[in-house]
Amino acid sequence: MRHTIFGESHGPCIGVVLEGVPAGLALNLEAVQRELDRRRPGQDPLSTARKEADRVQVVSGLFEGKTTGAPLTMVIENMDQRSGDYDSLRYTPRPGHGDYAGFIRSKGCQDHRGGGHFSGRLTAPLVAAGAVAKQLLAERGVWVGAHISSVYGICDAAPEDIAELKSLPEKAFPVLDDKKGEEMQAAISEARQEGDSVGGAVECAVAGLPAGLGGPDFGCNVEGIFAQYLFAVPAVKGVDFGAGVALSLMRGSEANDPFTVQEGSVLTRTNHAGGINGGITNGMPVTFEVTIRPTPSIALPQESVDLRTGEETEIEIKGRHDPCIVPRAVPVIEAAAALAACQVLGI
Amino acid sequence: MRHTIFGESHGPCIGVVLEGVPAGLALNLEAVQRELDRRRPGQDPLSTARKEADRVQVVSGLFEGKTTGAPLTMVIENMDQRSGDYDSLRYTPRPGHGDYAGFIRSKGCQDHRGGGHFSGRLTAPLVAAGAVAKQLLAERGVWVGAHISSVYGICDAAPEDIAELKSLPEKAFPVLDDKKGEEMQAAISEARQEGDSVGGAVECAVAGLPAGLGGPDFGCNVEGIFAQYLFAVPAVKGVDFGAGVALSLMRGSEANDPFTVQEGSVLTRTNHAGGINGGITNGMPVTFEVTIRPTPSIALPQESVDLRTGEETEIEIKGRHDPCIVPRAVPVIEAAAALAACQVLGI
Amino acid sequence: MRHTIFGESHGPCIGVVLEGVPAGLALNLEAVQRELDRRRPGQDPLSTARKEADRVQVVSGLFEGKTTGAPLTMVIENMDQRSGDYDSLRYTPRPGHGDYAGFIRSKGCQDHRGGGHFSGRLTAPLVAAGAVAKQLLAERGVWVGAHISSVYGICDAAPEDIAELKSLPEKAFPVLDDKKGEEMQAAISEARQEGDSVGGAVECAVAGLPAGLGGPDFGCNVEGIFAQYLFAVPAVKGVDFGAGVALSLMRGSEANDPFTVQEGSVLTRTNHAGGINGGITNGMPVTFEVTIRPTPSIALPQESVDLRTGEETEIEIKGRHDPCIVPRAVPVIEAAAALAACQVLGI
Amino acid sequence: MRHTIFGESHGPCIGVVLEGVPAGLALNLEAVQRELDRRRPGQDPLSTARKEADRVQVVSGLFEGKTTGAPLTMVIENMDQRSGDYDSLRYTPRPGHGDYAGFIRSKGCQDHRGGGHFSGRLTAPLVAAGAVAKQLLAERGVWVGAHISSVYGICDAAPEDIAELKSLPEKAFPVLDDKKGEEMQAAISEARQEGDSVGGAVECAVAGLPAGLGGPDFGCNVEGIFAQYLFAVPAVKGVDFGAGVALSLMRGSEANDPFTVQEGSVLTRTNHAGGINGGITNGMPVTFEVTIRPTPSIALPQESVDLRTGEETEIEIKGRHDPCIVPRAVPVIEAAAALAACQVLGI
Repeated sequence: MRHTIFGESHGPCIGVVLEGVPAGLALNLEAVQRELDRRRPGQDPLSTARKEADRVQVVSGLFEGKTTGAPLTMVIENMDQRSGDYDSLRYTPRPGHGDYAGFIRSKGCQDHRGGGHFSGRLTAPLVAAGAVAKQLLAERGVWVGAHISSVYGICDAAPEDIAELKSLPEKAFPVLDDKKGEEMQAAISEARQEGDSVGGAVECAVAGLPAGLGGPDFGCNVEGIFAQYLFAVPAVKGVDFGAGVALSLMRGSEANDPFTVQEGSVLTRTNHAGGINGGITNGMPVTFEVTIRPTPSIALPQESVDLRTGEETEIEIKGRHDPCIVPRAVPVIEAAAALAACQVLGI
Repeated sequence: MRHTIFGESHGPCIGVVLEGVPAGLALNLEAVQRELDRRRPGQDPLSTARKEADRVQVVSGLFEGKTTGAPLTMVIENMDQRSGDYDSLRYTPRPGHGDYAGFIRSKGCQDHRGGGHFSGRLTAPLVAAGAVAKQLLAERGVWVGAHISSVYGICDAAPEDIAELKSLPEKAFPVLDDKKGEEMQAAISEARQEGDSVGGAVECAVAGLPAGLGGPDFGCNVEGIFAQYLFAVPAVKGVDFGAGVALSLMRGSEANDPFTVQEGSVLTRTNHAGGINGGITNGMPVTFEVTIRPTPSIALPQESVDLRTGEETEIEIKGRHDPCIVPRAVPVIEAAAALAACQVLGI
Repeated sequence: MRHTIFGESHGPCIGVVLEGVPAGLALNLEAVQRELDRRRPGQDPLSTARKEADRVQVVSGLFEGKTTGAPLTMVIENMDQRSGDYDSLRYTPRPGHGDYAGFIRSKGCQDHRGGGHFSGRLTAPLVAAGAVAKQLLAERGVWVGAHISSVYGICDAAPEDIAELKSLPEKAFPVLDDKKGEEMQAAISEARQEGDSVGGAVECAVAGLPAGLGGPDFGCNVEGIFAQYLFAVPAVKGVDFGAGVALSLMRGSEANDPFTVQEGSVLTRTNHAGGINGGITNGMPVTFEVTIRPTPSIALPQESVDLRTGEETEIEIKGRHDPCIVPRAVPVIEAAAALAACQVLGI
Repeated sequence: MRHTIFGESHGPCIGVVLEGVPAGLALNLEAVQRELDRRRPGQDPLSTARKEADRVQVVSGLFEGKTTGAPLTMVIENMDQRSGDYDSLRYTPRPGHGDYAGFIRSKGCQDHRGGGHFSGRLTAPLVAAGAVAKQLLAERGVWVGAHISSVYGICDAAPEDIAELKSLPEKAFPVLDDKKGEEMQAAISEARQEGDSVGGAVECAVAGLPAGLGGPDFGCNVEGIFAQYLFAVPAVKGVDFGAGVALSLMRGSEANDPFTVQEGSVLTRTNHAGGINGGITNGMPVTFEVTIRPTPSIALPQESVDLRTGEETEIEIKGRHDPCIVPRAVPVIEAAAALAACQVLGI
């Protein structure tokens, strides 16, 4: 399965083509829409004021409710664009954004309105693709769950049982410890009032993958496959499996996951390896944490450069932006993980 | 350029085929050998006692000292194998290793001797391939440097100027602050005496990549490309770009790298983004830190399972092992980064 | 550059996503439309009666008339569907078509209406993608031309100078010898009156590719790259480079192309190798002929099988079909060749 | 499964790395050697006088006789090189060879001795890889067979039953009609005496592939997959499926393969489509014919150019060469087809 995302923030539509979808899947389009609704902007005072219905439409690859095996194309119309907001920033790149790097890459021809193809809005078709992947995984007993693990240093509880993540999609603010969630929201709110933004992290688990998938070599390594999908999500700057960076502080006797046998199955007592040894799944849940940088769009004045004159200048970003992208990133990380899991499974 | 690594720890040889090497490179084989020597085991009391000359031999793709554009094959003979050490572990997987996952994947047919194809020894051909990549990068003004950034929580100094990393290959223990290096070595020594091992981290920089390479999409995202190469290095469990996990603790006003103009070039005052915005290089050095888990092979008794009977058991690993893989990982991480940089540059 | 074609004959639209289009191309959309018009059905009494405007619409990747480097998506609406024509054939596969093979592959879930995703109609987005490729090639001095080389055994003249192919797109029936073209049309007309169809061949040339592109190995071999694009065109069953099958009748002294020097350039006196030696371009035009099988949809009764009962049955195809696909295949073959040439050039 | 061939005609060895070989195959090395022996030079007066034992040696990926799933590397030593034969041709490319194209591609750095990496000798590792593929196919009931279908216009009989191809590997000159085979050998002998060479064709069948594999789209099209493997065989200039070029002379009523049901299986009465409809296997044998150009190395004087001076010159090729490559190409085409079949099957 291979996904190709297209569109721009202020173009007529955004979408995704999924090649290699197995034929015969009775696609639950409502479930796809529910995933999109989890990511949709304009739902609470902490997210961008841009209003988008984000209704998904399937234009190919589906016949009488079932996938045909031909490329599956899903399209979402753009409705609430205010391109004028961006004219003043056309030649003065926003720090932390892809504006400058994209300007050089596109020889100055990029669609600068709302970030163009670099916009976080392009994660909507990714979520749609991931929703299809989740349905394919469900058929094989695999599910994906995630929670906000931290915002600006405020940490959520760790799941005692990975299954706790299953019910989080129903929550408006997906944390395990709601009290911590309130603290996080207060921190986001405070940053917004000061014209600033905050970063955080998302912890994700993929449960149900059998042992023996992947390999040690470049190209089939399970960590490498997941990382490639996860880093393609805007604002992700770090991917750490299992105990993650804490492994650098451990001794082998602590880091090694002891084997045990439960009901005839070989398991490990701990899961510091995040379900992967030697680049191969070991039957435990694949777990990882991704670092999400603070939203680069902030209201405070910032140092930039005028790309026409080559002189330093100062900018202020108007537009409508999330002061913290982490809550809306949760279904996006799940989607990327679901697509990665499909590749690992050879779907 | 595409590399394919082959061989087993206790087979006749290990090696790598590099396809797509540009023709006409006057390959400096001594420089390749120097990189291998940096990684070579048996050089100090803290690393494994296995002795290997690790002499690289080119068997194809080189003619009269220059690359021909045909596949470049480099082979290293295995000399000091003690396969008997591993017989007792054939059906009792070592915790933290790829033994169990590999057993399932190979349907029980893997070469278990010394980790077989999963052995850290397979990083030798990776270093050889990376050494070729470094020579191609040097022609384009790109260089790669790294240091041990931490061992068991003891942190090296951060480079004030990235160029400080250039001279580290000459050091036996590649840190910027030698005092910290001594503390790290003491921690490793202590772990070894207790039959244990320790983890750590390597920080790496790729300097000289021009702005505008890569893209936001899956498959061309620069972070994703680097991560795929880095996670293919055994024991790497996390990859974090720029300020890394610290970004989760920051506000946007702190994380955003302000633009500035110096001698006509657009730069950023800080490099929290690690030289990458929107998946595209921005002209600053690409920087990242990788988490290296503690060596899984430890002398202490550990819980395992007998794969023939399905019953729990206890094992003790004899063999010869590094109590900390981090020092020898430095040239390996550089090699992986060099290959990734070649892909980003379209070499 | 990578193209992904989506859509079905009787779905809402068909289209193509082109990834990796270089930024900064001032896309001539009228030229794209002209190529589509060359392929468009319903233009003469010998082609299908289905009427389609085939107006191309760009929905992403283009900004202010120039490509941005983001995925370029082109969409064509379907307008004149008569899906009812196909109901009777849903479970009785048409001989020579992909119906049966597609039924098995899709586990019975394919969109059978008008051939679904297997329809020749899907060559419209291929032509659109090829038109973009042609504009990129033109910037590098490369052009693509083709003619009907034979229909039902009636052969067109061979071009004395490859440049003769340049003006053919203006012709309604693209042959070099119009008298032969009339004979071909008579043969097609006769077949149609008898409820039958005829096959033929298209000869194509790609001129202007420099020497030294490609390689002998699997994956970079120039013949292999062209073949992969050409065989993805429905109805193509053979691809033969240079003198093609006639090479099997030759001696080496006849087949070898003697070298010569003209105005400082190394050329060959003949071009039996079709511009490719050892899988690498030699600077001569890349030439090849593709065999186009007769349209499988014919009005005569044919033997089929009822896939519900597993019993033999007879079918008659109603619908609207071209009695010979060769004339409309000419711009399609050119499009496939243009995309292949882009890959060979590393665009 | 992915194969990478390395080596040069006059280097120390040639070989192949096969990635993705399923674990657990009890590799029959004698069968691999038998395939190599079919291709080996110096066996009869009509082939090159170069003597090579072509003993295959497995250096990785095999343990206790079974594949481990790690890269399988097979190496063949070069023994009978006479590099001096080629010095005079270093800067005067042989017509019909890859010398000139390769010179440009390698910026003058190619290994010119005996064709270097372009040598037909590199088909030996391809045959070894194909022999492994054949064993994997055999486990799935798939077999590959081929015969010389023509030499210099003298045609072998067509197989009445595809199973006739199964016994041909035992023949020194693999044709169905031995009388025709004698005529072919006479034609080759005559060409050799006149210092010339002749071309021909090989017909190949892959039997046992189930219906429903592949797809209509670029990248998964079965014809495209086979063609990519076949064109990577030196001297192959055309690939034609089923009835091949004869389809251009047919009417649809003749070309379409009528469906029939035999013992509950859907078959076609004829196989003009070569087992592929819409880019998908239909359950009939996949059949195709490849055109093999005459050996470009001939003893007659030929026109060349001196690449140092840019002036026209005349050359005479000494060396040792096959006057007709077709007989030795038979196992090579089978090997390429076996690897293609593995890809189609998802092995």
